Amino acid sequence: MNIEMIRAAATRLEGHARKTPLLSSPFLDEIAGRRLFVKPECLQHTGSFKFRGGWSAVSALDAATRARGVIAFSSGNHAQGVAMAAAAHSAPAVIVMPADAPKMKIDNTRALGAEVVLYDRAGGESREAVGDKIAGERGLTLIKPYDEPQVIAGQGTTGLEIAQQAGDAGVAQADVLVCCGGGGLTSGIALALEADAPGLRARPVEPEGFDDVARSLASGRIEQNAELSGSICDAIITPAPGEITFPIMQRLCGPGLVVSEEDCLRAMALAFARLKIVVEPGGAAALAAALFHGDRIEGDAVIAVCTGGNVDAEMFRTALTREI
Amino acid sequence: MNIEMIRAAATRLEGHARKTPLLSSPFLDEIAGRRLFVKPECLQHTGSFKFRGGWSAVSALDAATRARGVIAFSSGNHAQGVAMAAAAHSAPAVIVMPADAPKMKIDNTRALGAEVVLYDRAGGESREAVGDKIAGERGLTLIKPYDEPQVIAGQGTTGLEIAQQAGDAGVAQADVLVCCGGGGLTSGIALALEADAPGLRARPVEPEGFDDVARSLASGRIEQNAELSGSICDAIITPAPGEITFPIMQRLCGPGLVVSEEDCLRAMALAFARLKIVVEPGGAAALAAALFHGDRIEGDAVIAVCTGGNVDAEMFRTALTREI
Repeated sequence: MNIEMIRAAATRLEGHARKTPLLSSPFLDEIAGRRLFVKPECLQHTGSFKFRGGWSAVSALDAATRARGVIAFSSGNHAQGVAMAAAAHSAPAVIVMPADAPKMKIDNTRALGAEVVLYDRAGGESREAVGDKIAGERGLTLIKPYDEPQVIAGQGTTGLEIAQQAGDAGVAQADVLVCCGGGGLTSGIALALEADAPGLRARPVEPEGFDDVARSLASGRIEQNAELSGSICDAIITPAPGEITFPIMQRLCGPGLVVSEEDCLRAMALAFARLKIVVEPGGAAALAAALFHGDRIEGDAVIAVCTGGNVDAEMFRTALTREI
Repeated sequence: MNIEMIRAAATRLEGHARKTPLLSSPFLDEIAGRRLFVKPECLQHTGSFKFRGGWSAVSALDAATRARGVIAFSSGNHAQGVAMAAAAHSAPAVIVMPADAPKMKIDNTRALGAEVVLYDRAGGESREAVGDKIAGERGLTLIKPYDEPQVIAGQGTTGLEIAQQAGDAGVAQADVLVCCGGGGLTSGIALALEADAPGLRARPVEPEGFDDVARSLASGRIEQNAELSGSICDAIITPAPGEITFPIMQRLCGPGLVVSEEDCLRAMALAFARLKIVVEPGGAAALAAALFHGDRIEGDAVIAVCTGGNVDAEMFRTALTREI
């Protein structure tokens, strides 16, 4: 895993992934107590940065392998990113989702061109067993959500853009806060910044109670989350940092930050009012840290990646009741 | 008023106004029945395209005139655009607003660095009398909201970007739908497209009951609106097309389109769900026309400008109850 892979992914993504802008607001600067810049990956295709990794992985396959198709296990943003990227490459995509996933997520993934295979989570059916059987029969290539070099390379293109855009804004030294699940985006951004903007430092942000990456960085070894559900920040809940992503984060990232669910909801309300973007709870964690935990951040500028915007209307309506 | 003024404005705006991206979603294409592209000026500084015109007008003044300051009459997006542009030029800005304007709008305009002068609308005080007195005493330059060449030039930079971005997306022929008040943005975009993308045609979109521009284009002379209040699309309600803007629109624009308030609310809900952007009711009119009135549009692609996102949480919560 290295910077050349990220640069190659950027070439493959050119003209396909959106170059999201860098947003700011004097009102948010005031709350943050420093200049605050937001990289709104909610505006990316399929509403999250996951499109980058999906496109990178699908486009990296040789033609014959790609023509057989790809498979992913996901009920969320990774599913949609892989589905849309595969469809654009005319590659079959199978997405394995729990039968009790929200109907809209299933419908969206199908509408993006993927074949959705449901498994019975409650009945003890293993998604790996279901997926392995189909993959074996059809010769599909598994695209893992984060611990996969070409996926990390795709997510890392976000970091190349941040390096360029921060330079244009005159920011040479800053913490770059990243909403973090398994660490694919965080490690990719960290590698890109190391190469193109060494004064910028990636730091993972997680919800309280699901801070496996922060604890792993502190202890120096991979730590697990005790629970895997029960957070409104579901998009960034994973069991533990990846075996590929963790050593990268360990080498390059600053300490992890932790935010509350209330912090995330209020950050969503502020992103609505001041930036006019829609952010999901897990995608607002980094912005929440920048706004409400400035005492744990260094420097006179900070950059927060808003990683996704796939939130239903009811949850967003709740966020809009929060104080701005 | 000509294309050279728009190009000169683009040079002055470079590095200051945001180049907003061109967004799309396969789900919106499906509803529209053709490829649909959205230019999200809600993501512009101060949450609307008005920042472009404000910056253009302030930056076009000679240094001595600018140092004396500028004045604008507005309780909405123009106020914020002028205030932020003036502050960035270290020019004093006076914004004349009705005393009964929403407190948040007054607070925001002040926070952007402007001096807010309130007048008593109910008591019959004339804003012109209040403004003229201050302007005369201090030597301030009035920045009109639309019928002002340097304002039109600034708004027209949106059209230069659309021409470039549509070309990149392979779109050479399309209607470009623009939410239209007095016609500053619409006429500026029309001039830019005439020069840089002659296969693209600007068309104004207005709310039912406030379709002065559509009626003026149909009759060939400037028509008035019967009412000036009572619409949730308040940002694009003006008495009549401007004396400078109307002849430009008459020469270059296709027929006007009219949408209902319900159309706008539903377009806001779809922009939330599919593009992850926050659009105000008046700013959603063009998107609503593209989505729900496709029978009045020609070609296999359409571009809609979402002009602003300054909507309060309560109105947005209402929009999110609409079917998507």
